[in-house]
Amino acid sequence: MSIFITFEGIEGSGKSTQISLLADHLSEQKIPFISTREPGGSDIGKKVRKLLLSTENTEITSRTELLLYAADRAQHVEQVIQPALARGKVVLCDRFSDATIAYQGYARGLELELIHSLNSLATGGIKPDLTFLIDCPVETGIGRALKRGEAEGSDEMRFEKEALSFHAKVLEGYKQIAQNEPERISVIDGSMPIGAIHNSIIELFSKRYARATSSRECCKIEL
Amino acid sequence: MSIFITFEGIEGSGKSTQISLLADHLSEQKIPFISTREPGGSDIGKKVRKLLLSTENTEITSRTELLLYAADRAQHVEQVIQPALARGKVVLCDRFSDATIAYQGYARGLELELIHSLNSLATGGIKPDLTFLIDCPVETGIGRALKRGEAEGSDEMRFEKEALSFHAKVLEGYKQIAQNEPERISVIDGSMPIGAIHNSIIELFSKRYARATSSRECCKIEL
Repeated sequence: MSIFITFEGIEGSGKSTQISLLADHLSEQKIPFISTREPGGSDIGKKVRKLLLSTENTEITSRTELLLYAADRAQHVEQVIQPALARGKVVLCDRFSDATIAYQGYARGLELELIHSLNSLATGGIKPDLTFLIDCPVETGIGRALKRGEAEGSDEMRFEKEALSFHAKVLEGYKQIAQNEPERISVIDGSMPIGAIHNSIIELFSKRYARATSSRECCKIEL
Repeated sequence: MSIFITFEGIEGSGKSTQISLLADHLSEQKIPFISTREPGGSDIGKKVRKLLLSTENTEITSRTELLLYAADRAQHVEQVIQPALARGKVVLCDRFSDATIAYQGYARGLELELIHSLNSLATGGIKPDLTFLIDCPVETGIGRALKRGEAEGSDEMRFEKEALSFHAKVLEGYKQIAQNEPERISVIDGSMPIGAIHNSIIELFSKRYARATSSRECCKIEL
């Protein structure tokens, strides 16, 4: 049963950990899924990701950044997400179009209308069925992300190196988006222990999955 | 006196040769100029160019291609073209937004309206003052480009390797654009000898430059 699930939040909010835990759960339940991410969910996207996140590319302008994210997304949707959904898989995706609204819109200040039309071009109209926004205090998240990046000797730190005020705007942006779409977006308290966050996610996922399954059953009966 | 001049045409039409000859002329005349190109006119753009033109990236979708060109252009305009024009220089540019209309619009079949809005986002509204479209038969141009690419062992051959029918659509697209904007775009017969093409370009450039200079003089007098 195909469901498109995205995870959003600032750097270091714990998205990757939670995606990995949900992936383990899906494996145990023998539910077919793929786990992917943006930027860099396709082969071409990996090259775009390097451009976008490398600390050396500080001169990228806001518009260029926006367009590179859109390019990454267009390739990702067409080559990875749509085919997986078409094969009836659950798609777990680390960041998607909400991230562009939060980062390039709310934090960089680019026009939201412009971002919406670029998102719609890049996604071909595809939208997540369910989004988990992990709401984590900025100091905690960024502190964690910087520490991890240093430990790993990562070069992908262009965003982590933005000021805390930038990340605060991102988080505010995310909350605004969640307020506008409460049906799709579940805000999860990221200060809870990892296991508790995971349990909340499992519960919400299971409800959504049951609904998707029963609506398919219902269609079958109707047919 | 700042003038923004672009050169358009299919692969192998002789744009680079003509840009280089016009650049020599400007040097001789002590007219300050820069010579640049798309994709790849900025440092970030060079990395995007590699993505766009490398023969190994055959799986790039049409939308991704369109968005990557727009990203390259946004960076190029903001970092290179606008600053040069602001310093009163002549800007010679090998391909610009018309190329996106011809290649991604007419040849790839993406919506022209969409391309126009992306162009306007990427250029921030900047338009060439003068465009030379070198009209060269497809077989001649592509034959020449393939030969040159082979001789140089170039990896930047993704477009050259498209079918001749693709390049024929590009050329038809260019001619359509030129028909719509005869004031800005001069169609030059690319089958003439190099020197004759250069002379035509010099003549058209000189008229445009004189007009720009006299309108500045005129403004000065009015002031």
